[in-house]
This record gives sequence, C-alpha cells and structure tokens, in this order.
Amino acid sequence: MSHNSFGHLFRVTTWGESHGPAIGCVVDGCPPRLALTEADIQPFLDRRRPGQSKFVTQRQEPDQVRILSGTFEGLTTGTPISLLIENTDQRSKDYGEIKDRYRPGHADLTYDLKYGIRDYRGGGRSSARETAMRVAAGAVARKVLEGVTIRGALVQMGPDRVDRAAWDWAAVEENAFFCPDRAAAARWEAMLTEARKSGSSLGAVIEVVAEGVSPGLGAPIYGKLDADIAAALMGINAVKGVEIGEGFAAAALSGEGNADEMRMAPDGRVLFGDNHAGGVLGGISTGQPIVARFAVKPTSSILTPRKSVDRFGQEVEVLTKGRHDPCVGIRAVPVGEAMLALVLADHLLRHRAQNPDAPTEARLPRN
Amino acid sequence: MSHNSFGHLFRVTTWGESHGPAIGCVVDGCPPRLALTEADIQPFLDRRRPGQSKFVTQRQEPDQVRILSGTFEGLTTGTPISLLIENTDQRSKDYGEIKDRYRPGHADLTYDLKYGIRDYRGGGRSSARETAMRVAAGAVARKVLEGVTIRGALVQMGPDRVDRAAWDWAAVEENAFFCPDRAAAARWEAMLTEARKSGSSLGAVIEVVAEGVSPGLGAPIYGKLDADIAAALMGINAVKGVEIGEGFAAAALSGEGNADEMRMAPDGRVLFGDNHAGGVLGGISTGQPIVARFAVKPTSSILTPRKSVDRFGQEVEVLTKGRHDPCVGIRAVPVGEAMLALVLADHLLRHRAQNPDAPTEARLPRN
Amino acid sequence: MSHNSFGHLFRVTTWGESHGPAIGCVVDGCPPRLALTEADIQPFLDRRRPGQSKFVTQRQEPDQVRILSGTFEGLTTGTPISLLIENTDQRSKDYGEIKDRYRPGHADLTYDLKYGIRDYRGGGRSSARETAMRVAAGAVARKVLEGVTIRGALVQMGPDRVDRAAWDWAAVEENAFFCPDRAAAARWEAMLTEARKSGSSLGAVIEVVAEGVSPGLGAPIYGKLDADIAAALMGINAVKGVEIGEGFAAAALSGEGNADEMRMAPDGRVLFGDNHAGGVLGGISTGQPIVARFAVKPTSSILTPRKSVDRFGQEVEVLTKGRHDPCVGIRAVPVGEAMLALVLADHLLRHRAQNPDAPTEARLPRN
Amino acid sequence: MSHNSFGHLFRVTTWGESHGPAIGCVVDGCPPRLALTEADIQPFLDRRRPGQSKFVTQRQEPDQVRILSGTFEGLTTGTPISLLIENTDQRSKDYGEIKDRYRPGHADLTYDLKYGIRDYRGGGRSSARETAMRVAAGAVARKVLEGVTIRGALVQMGPDRVDRAAWDWAAVEENAFFCPDRAAAARWEAMLTEARKSGSSLGAVIEVVAEGVSPGLGAPIYGKLDADIAAALMGINAVKGVEIGEGFAAAALSGEGNADEMRMAPDGRVLFGDNHAGGVLGGISTGQPIVARFAVKPTSSILTPRKSVDRFGQEVEVLTKGRHDPCVGIRAVPVGEAMLALVLADHLLRHRAQNPDAPTEARLPRN
Repeated sequence: MSHNSFGHLFRVTTWGESHGPAIGCVVDGCPPRLALTEADIQPFLDRRRPGQSKFVTQRQEPDQVRILSGTFEGLTTGTPISLLIENTDQRSKDYGEIKDRYRPGHADLTYDLKYGIRDYRGGGRSSARETAMRVAAGAVARKVLEGVTIRGALVQMGPDRVDRAAWDWAAVEENAFFCPDRAAAARWEAMLTEARKSGSSLGAVIEVVAEGVSPGLGAPIYGKLDADIAAALMGINAVKGVEIGEGFAAAALSGEGNADEMRMAPDGRVLFGDNHAGGVLGGISTGQPIVARFAVKPTSSILTPRKSVDRFGQEVEVLTKGRHDPCVGIRAVPVGEAMLALVLADHLLRHRAQNPDAPTEARLPRN
Repeated sequence: MSHNSFGHLFRVTTWGESHGPAIGCVVDGCPPRLALTEADIQPFLDRRRPGQSKFVTQRQEPDQVRILSGTFEGLTTGTPISLLIENTDQRSKDYGEIKDRYRPGHADLTYDLKYGIRDYRGGGRSSARETAMRVAAGAVARKVLEGVTIRGALVQMGPDRVDRAAWDWAAVEENAFFCPDRAAAARWEAMLTEARKSGSSLGAVIEVVAEGVSPGLGAPIYGKLDADIAAALMGINAVKGVEIGEGFAAAALSGEGNADEMRMAPDGRVLFGDNHAGGVLGGISTGQPIVARFAVKPTSSILTPRKSVDRFGQEVEVLTKGRHDPCVGIRAVPVGEAMLALVLADHLLRHRAQNPDAPTEARLPRN
Repeated sequence: MSHNSFGHLFRVTTWGESHGPAIGCVVDGCPPRLALTEADIQPFLDRRRPGQSKFVTQRQEPDQVRILSGTFEGLTTGTPISLLIENTDQRSKDYGEIKDRYRPGHADLTYDLKYGIRDYRGGGRSSARETAMRVAAGAVARKVLEGVTIRGALVQMGPDRVDRAAWDWAAVEENAFFCPDRAAAARWEAMLTEARKSGSSLGAVIEVVAEGVSPGLGAPIYGKLDADIAAALMGINAVKGVEIGEGFAAAALSGEGNADEMRMAPDGRVLFGDNHAGGVLGGISTGQPIVARFAVKPTSSILTPRKSVDRFGQEVEVLTKGRHDPCVGIRAVPVGEAMLALVLADHLLRHRAQNPDAPTEARLPRN
Repeated sequence: MSHNSFGHLFRVTTWGESHGPAIGCVVDGCPPRLALTEADIQPFLDRRRPGQSKFVTQRQEPDQVRILSGTFEGLTTGTPISLLIENTDQRSKDYGEIKDRYRPGHADLTYDLKYGIRDYRGGGRSSARETAMRVAAGAVARKVLEGVTIRGALVQMGPDRVDRAAWDWAAVEENAFFCPDRAAAARWEAMLTEARKSGSSLGAVIEVVAEGVSPGLGAPIYGKLDADIAAALMGINAVKGVEIGEGFAAAALSGEGNADEMRMAPDGRVLFGDNHAGGVLGGISTGQPIVARFAVKPTSSILTPRKSVDRFGQEVEVLTKGRHDPCVGIRAVPVGEAMLALVLADHLLRHRAQNPDAPTEARLPRN
C-alpha cells in the first residue's frame, strides 16, 4: 500500500512538491521491448503545460522530462522507468502570505491537521503540478495499449454544455479549451475572459473516451474496471464527481430505455445498439468504447476575499493572489486521458496474468 | 492485489456465488478487543434482506450470519474474522433458459468473454447477493469507527427527487424505500407499483453521510479519501455515477459560490459555513460530515423482450423471468452505508499508522 | 496488505483457529477452466494429517475439505475459491492449564503483548493446524503449475543427516518421516521413539525441490523468487532458517568452486554443470531445478518443566501435556511443498502479466 | 504489487541501473516531523561505498545523495521522500566483452530469458550498485525507529568463523571487514589478499542485530516478522541462506536445549534466559534482541575462465575483468543492517495501525 502509487501491475509512484527542486515518478511493471524515448512523452506534457494561453496559469515551466532509468538503446527493459522534471520557475515569495492562513477550498487546513506540517509553497504536494507526472506516466501507458485510442474533451464550462450533435474531435485541438463544439468554444472564450477580469472562476465537466479496448478488462467485485476509473478520475485535483456511460442520467431512465441491446456483426463480433453502459458491464469491459465524465469544481483561488482561519486559530480573510487558472478544468483534460490510460494499462496486465488466452475482440463463440 | 478484496489495512475478501452452497467473507486487520457477536451484524443484514416488501425480490433467504473465526469470548482477537451465510433458497431451475443467452445490461457476456466459463445460476459471482457480505463486513467496520454515525437514504427514484427541506432521518426507517421525505415516499409507492405491474424498472440515487469522522483521514494523490469512496460506491452493482459534496453541480458554480468559508467555534474547532466539499479537501477529511451520492441504473431484468445474442453467436430475444427487484437502488442503501464504513475504517488505520498523534477533532492550533 | 494473505496474483487468505468451528481459506486469482474438485485436494491433506503414525500428534481429524465457491461443474471459474475444513476434535479442556501461562518457545506471550487477548485453546491462530489450509491451497496451485513436479523430503532429524548418495524419492512415501534414505529412516525411528518416551523433542531439516519450472519466474530487487521462497518457508511454524541451492555452505566455497558452468544441450536448451545456485540467478529462475531447505526447531511442547511467567507477571513452571508431535518437522514436509507451489504459481502469473511472450524453456537465442 | 518496492506502510521503491545517469528511490509512508537532511543519510552511504580499501571494488563514486522531495525546513512532511545519487564513474567500455556472453553466477542469462533485453553495462539493474539506495532508505528508516540500535558484523569469511567470545562491537569499525573479532580480522586480511592475487573470491556470513525493538511487531501467518526479515535478507545480491536466532543449528538441538526460559525482571519486564529464538516467537517480536544471519556466496566474477554460453547459443569461455570485490559479503554488512531497519520500520507502522495502545516494552500484566 502506498498513498502515492497508482495501479498494481503497471504501477506509478509520483513524488515532488510544487516548489521543490524537481518532481518525478517511477513506472514499475512496464513490459520490456517497447520503443520509448523522451520524445514519446514530451508532446503530452506540452499539451498540459501552463502558460500556453491567457486562460491558464502564467507560470512558465518548460516541463522538460528526462528518462533516468528503465530503457536501453531506446527500448524499455522491464525494469523501473524513472522520469524527472526539474522545477525551474518557483517564485516562492508569492506564497509567503498564505504560510499561516488556510485558503478555503484548498488542502492547506487538512494537511496541517493530518501531518502537523506542510510545505505551503504553491500548495506543496497538493499542487496540480503533480499531475504533470501523471501525464508523463500516461504517455508510457499508451505504449502498452497498442491499438487503443484515448481522447478527452471539455463538455461543459460553468453551466454551459456542448451540443453533442456538433461534436468534432478535430475541434478539440483547435481551441484553448479542448472543446469539441466550435460554437461552444466561442461562447466559453467570452465567459472565461469575464471570469478572469472579475477574479472569479468556473467549473467544468470533462469527458474521456477509450476506443479499441479489449473485452475482459476488469474483474468482479473489487477489481471492477469502472470502480478503478472512478478512483482514478476522482483523485484528480478539484474533481467532485465521476460517471460512466449514461451516469447520473441513468437513474431517471426506465429499464427499457437503458437497455443496451446486442447484435452480431457480420465478422462475428458482438455490437451494441447503444452504449448506455459506457463500455463496462459487471465491472468488465465489453469491447465497446469506454466513456467516462468527471466534474471539476471552480478554481478555489479567487480574488474575492473569503472568511477563513489561520493556524493559530484566529479568524482571517483570505484573498489569493499569484498565478492561477480561472478554470482548472481545462488542464484536467490531458490529466483525465492519462489516468484512463493508466487504469487500462494496469488492467490489461492483470487480465493477461489470469487469462492469457482470452480473446482481444468481443467475438462469439468464445470457445 | 486481489480482485475480490477491498481495503488495505482493514481488508475484506468476499467469496461465493448466488447459487453455491454459501457466501462469505474474511475481514483481516480488525483491531483486537472490540465486542463482536453475530447480533452486531445481523440487524444490518436484515435491513438489506430481500423479501421484506413487495418492492424487492421475493427470494426468501434468512441470511443468518455465522462468525467462524477471529473472536474469542465475544471479543475480536486481531486475527481474521470469517463470516459465512448459507444459501438456502436456490431454485436453480429458474435460470436454465439464460444458460446460453446473454441478458442485456448484465455481466453474462463479459464474464464469458473474460473467463470462457461462467456460473449462470442467478448471475453467479456477479449477483447482488454478494453485497450481503459487504453489509456484514460493514457492520464490523462500524465497530472500529467509534463515535461515527453512517446513514444513507434514497434521494431520487426514477426522475423524482426528494425535497431536501422535508428531510427527516426518522422517516428513512418508516417506509420501504429508505426515503427521508414522507411525501416522496408516497409518490414512489405508486411509481414502483406501476413499474412492477408493467414489468419495467426504475433507477435511483442514494446519498450516504458519515458524521463524526476525524480530520486527517485520506492522503495525497493516490490515497485520497474521496477517490477511495468513489471506487467503493462505483463498485456496487449497477452503479453508474458517484459524487462528493456538491458533485456535478459544482461544475456550474462560481468560485465564490462554491467556497467553503471557515470560522472558529468557541471550543476551538474549525467550522465551515457550508460544506460544498462534502467533508474532503485535497483528499483528506476536514472533520465536517462526509457526503456522497451514487446513481443506480434501472434494473436490467425486465419483462419486455430485448434483442441480444447467445454464446454460439446467434441473435436472440431475451426476457427475464424470475424474482427481481424493480428498483435495485433500494437495497443499495445499506450497501452504500457499508462501503462508506469500510473505506473509513481502512483509512482510520492507515492514518493512525503514519500519524499516531494527530488530533481527532479539527482543532487549532495543531501543535 | 494483509497479515493473513500470501501471494499477489495467485493469492491465498487463510482464517481460523485451532479450536474454533472451522478453518478455511480463499484462493483468489486462480485462472479459469482448470479441473478442480475436492478429490484433487484431499490426498495432500491426508498426507499432512495428524494421527497417521505414532510419531505425530494423535489428534484425530478427518480434515475433510469442502469447496464452497469458485468452481462450476468441476472447473474453476476465475472467481475466488473458498475452501473449508470443519474442526471436529477439539477437546478444549486439555488446554485450561495454559490459559494464563506462557509456554516457552510458543507464541503465547507475543500474542498477548501484541493484541492484549488470545484464544489460548490449542494455540488459537498460531496453531500448526492452520497449515492444513496452506496444503489445500497448495493443491490448487499445483493445478496452475502444469508440467512442474514439486516434492519434499526430510533430510536431517536432530543431528542425523541423510546420505545423499542413498537418496531415493520412492523411499519418501514408504516411511513415516518422508525420509529419502532408507537407512536413515531406520535410525530415525529409534531416535524418535526414544525422544517420545522421554518427553523430549527433535528438530529437522526439510528439502523441497521443484522440477520443470520455466525460466524467467521472479524479478529483480524486491520481487526475487528466492526472497519470496525464503519468506514462504520461514513463515512455516517453528522454522528458523532457509537456504537456496548451496545455501550456507556457499559461504565456505571459492568463486571457482561455486561457479555454475553452462553448456548447450543438443536441443538448444541451456544446461548447467552443477546447480549450486538452486535454480535461481539474480532472483529469476534459470530453468534448472529449484532447490530449497529449511530448518525446523524441536517441538517446544515437552514434558520437562521449564521456567516461565504467567500473564499476571508471576514466575511459574510450565510443562506441556496434551497431544503433540515430538518432531513437528515431519509434518512440515507437505507444508513446505505447498508453500513452494504457492510461490511458483504466483510468480508464474506475475511473469506472464509483464512478459506474455517469454519462452517457457531456457532456449537460446531468446529472439 | 511491485517488483521494485519493499515494505507496505513504510515503502521503498528503487530505480536505476549501474551505468545509467543516476539511481534513486522513493520512500513513501514516512511519518511527518522527523528531522531529516542529507547529513543523516550520507554517513551510511560512505560506510558502504566502494573504493575505501583494497578489498572492495576500486570503482570511485562519491555517492552523494540528494533529497528531492518530502522534507521542508529539515523535517519530513509525510509526503514521499525522493532520494537520488548520480552515477559519475561509469566506464562503459569495460563491459563491452560481456555484452553477448552470460557470466556464470550472474543474472545475465536470466534477464535475457525473462525480458529478451538487458542493459549489460555493469550488470544493469542487477548490479549491487542498487543496494546504495537500500542503505539510503535504511537511514530514513532508522529515524522512524527511535530507541532501536541496528548493527551488523561479518562473522565468517570463507570457512573461517569469528570467535564469539572475542566479540567486540567496537572492533567492527576498526577493520576493513566489519569483523567483531580482532584476531579473525588479521587472518582475513591475509586470506583476502591471497584470494585477490589469485583472482579468486570468498563467501561470507553476516550477522545483523536489532536491540530495543518493541514487542508485538510482526503478525501471525503471512505477516511474520521473521518471514519478512528472511525475504529482506535473501533479496540482497548473492545471498543464499538466512537464519534467525539459533537458525539451522536449532535442528540439531533437543526441545530442552532450545527452550527459552522466561523470568520477570524487577521492573516488570519479561526477560529470557537465552534467546535461541532470535527475538521472534510465532512471527512476533518478543522485546529481546532480534538476531539474523545471512550467507553470501563468493563473488561470481573471477579471473579463472569458466565455461558458458552466449546469447546466440554458442558455447564460450568467460573470464571477468573489470573492478570487482573479491568478497562481496563485506559490503553486504551495511546493506543487511539497512534491510533490517526497513523491515522493522514497516512493521512498527503496521503494528501501530492495528494496535495503537500496545505496550512498547515486554511488561506484564499486559492489561
């Protein structure tokens, strides 16, 4: 058991604080002989990186990843892969004033109550900076998931949702919000500019989708694929809700309305009329796309003063200056993709260990 | 790693199929010298048991639990606690017709694709019958959580939500739905009767609340309390969504609207104006009530025929006869409470191991 | 983490006390579609069972195992296998006099210091009775290890060692000591009769050998096959030492004397001139036989009074009556075999997860 | 599960190869507010470091450790501690000739059979260089073990054992062999010089002792303290045997001879006449010193040519040049101490989680 590790067989342990010398992770259990260099990882980090638009924090970090172990001549060796990013832009002075004060909505208070000590600089360990290592590890996980496509998009900003009929994956890479609906992206630009000017912030909902996943990943009871996806996404900073497939809307449907009818494709694969289930039945993947969504609360650091307390038990007002995202949900898109990749890579190895001869497509008859 | 174990230090392993000779679990890591007999567990099982009203499956199981190990003269000994319930009402003949057919919305297909074999009788391992052991183990977990109150309620059936202003915990025990709003309970009775007559089914949303939880439970990054709660609740049969505190609604709030302002109580404890966070900040409990909700899909077994396939790759129609709940969400209430208890007991031990001198109340100054 | 589980992917959790209603275990992670009934397990239990000769405890237990879950129509289903043996001969009255006294060499004192409570009847959880479940689980592990032969023998009783030149595996099943040397068996019969008459006891050394093991099992650093074998064997009751291959004798050899030279077999497999390494290099199996030995101390329960203390802090004399083995090492033979099987089955699954295309024989070239 | 992590609650994950840019580890689960800087770790690394005498490898590494995370203002914060040592003296050219050849007694062959790829430079991941991180992590573990003294000594080199009557802990730091017997140290100097000249090598036995350990560490069945010590020590490079207390010699004792009689000290603590058990009964610490020994085989790299094979399946002769220890057992002394520290720190946290009010001394009455 580790509080800083994720996964069982494809296992990632991250370390590092926002304002320490570096952050890093160890990826243990990666299969050998996969092609892997920094160039496979860097593009995913660049996509998540702050400082790319006026809508995300202006902290400037090159976020240059280095592979310190686990590869030889460009191939993984089966031994632990150590990844490291140096922290180069740390401006610790910005954070002096919150040294003794607990910012509402942040982990400041709970860290102090738990540990009796905290590195207050930039949130220390609880900083979203740690998610850079999840994205890096996720890039390694994608190598394990040959044939699987994992993509994410922002489907709601504040109260404004995308029009699913207008969904275009190509649009996601064209705007600063990972928004699949060009009209929504235009509206959001105005919303976010307004929030930024007023020192306010906005929440968001992200959808992540994995296509090409083998059936059979996941397992009964406490190894359920959807339960692990839920933990993975809920564990991203500021996330307050997770749903799979139809999600909370399923509660309002009838059994008939929610049924995923099945039929046979001419090539012998099982297809589903709908995918209300989001690609998981009984905790095990069906071979249909895996669809999950998660809700990110509005950034807690805002310019409006809020009542709080300090570590001496005095009531104070807190107003967060410094460099922050008005909508942290935007940067959560690549993080959500990475977490989904980590869950799937781990479950692929777990499935294979117990079921080495299971089919990689939903074909019948099974035997 | 185990696909059938839950928790790390307070660890539960369940076993058993719906129509085997028995189901059971092993609770490992329970602290010694807690008073524990079958009488501490049985009431929780009775509350979950089928056959109590016309709204839940008519399968009649006494669900009499036996403690086979881990206690001595009425006290836990620190060694593994084995709990067992015999299956007494198994009517295997009811299930013959689904032997070769995959019921839509069930785990039939995915088990066959994964394992190449399945015990089709009553869903085998994927049957909700397994949740009886979660409830039993949860009763043991409650013993560990001295001073903590864990309760649950159905807050939505189909599209109909309770009026939170009318919430009365006492009402929960008065109706067949664990409904805290007496007016809603009356409406639901009509809805469910109608669904039952027409062979249809309804979804539901359940809320579970833990009061009296120490601050400091949970840990950064991958040991987050809310992430583990998400996994625990998503892992309950038929659950498609989980949220903590404000949940998905947080996405539509502004940073100001979602802020949990803090103040000092006269006794030196930190109090929160609101509890949008649901009792968890940065993955660590604040000392406020922990509030989580989860959505249960409508029962997949309905009387309307649905298109499906059989294990030979032929298209068929499936109509589920047999004894089923028109709203499985009802029985998920005690299961949700139990899962929350399991998460909290495990995290209490994990917290204590690393932080033996941490405060049990949110008092400042910490040192 | 569990104090009562063994293995990671092929994972066994045992429960039960010597004088409770039953003992049992849950085997999680077993691959599906292996033929398994009670008849596959019972012979191994019968081999370990007390009461078979005058040299082992006269406690009469039929030790009849029942499979309660995880199989369907004689095949494993991939779900957890629950095994149970009822305790039928419990004579609790024999143990009243050690209720408050700590027997030297037993776990009585340490359980009380740790837990503040103990089930003193027959040693409770620390009784060797628990090893019956290891043997049962080991029988399941053997099913996973197709093509692997696992055998054990007593190679030393008290100070008297077998003559390795006289080794005959057939002899092992012919005497009451699992002794591979017929002459030694005859000597031991006299020794043990003498020890028994005088109320004394004898230690022993057991050797276990696995032939037909694939190369590649085990992993660098903390997943070493030999480290896991060491833990498995040291964890057997009364064991004080473990060695692999040449073992402690290797310390006295020169590098030349200990070198395992290699050559190519005509069929392309790598063979070793000697097997000083005991089948493991760098923590990974070589494909040669895996050879391990472990030392069992003389039974602590003897008829000569020994100085001790009671739980009130008073000095007392303790003399153990009741039914005990004069040489517990004898019954440790099938237990050692079982533990080796459990380690190998777990590592086979672990290896397969990360290296699905690794060769199952030590053939070169690898690619 | 991870092949490169050790421990459960105090958990260490190491990474890095002999000739990569760096090696490192992550220590997760360390309690907060312990004083920790590089100066607490460096002395232990210096003690293990190569190049200190003519008897250990002449590789010159400053082995300067850096703490990259997990501390703040000189105190641990409860978050993961990342330690890193750069590899500065890598001379890769030395190893070209073993690129395609498998050195007898090394992990070269098994890595290739398992992974189909290996970093052959200096043994890659299987190099003893990795043990530097165990020593570094062990230094952190010692911080957790307040009041515990952990020491080690070489008690046998080749066939020559120390005289236990001449044991002096002070001597250990005075010679190049960690030898507690000054006369033996003088003999060993001659032996090792001779071995070095002839290109041969010697094995060794190391004893590690922990004093001041609380009773109650360890747990029944599969969480046994001695089983975990066995795994920890057997997992050190080149170790072939492990024993606790009397060890293999216990097999030759009678029950009377091996009994650890107990009496009460005037201060209410339980004392033992002897400590044949080595401080562990039933897998749980007694409060007496914990005593373990392990056997290290002679260095496999010798100057005498040995028959082997290459990766193309050709028979070859291998002679290892390069910088190597004639007796790797010497450097295993600080590694053994570190591993014992890691086991004890982990078990202290595990014990505390389940038994927060257990006594820290072996005092009776317990309640």
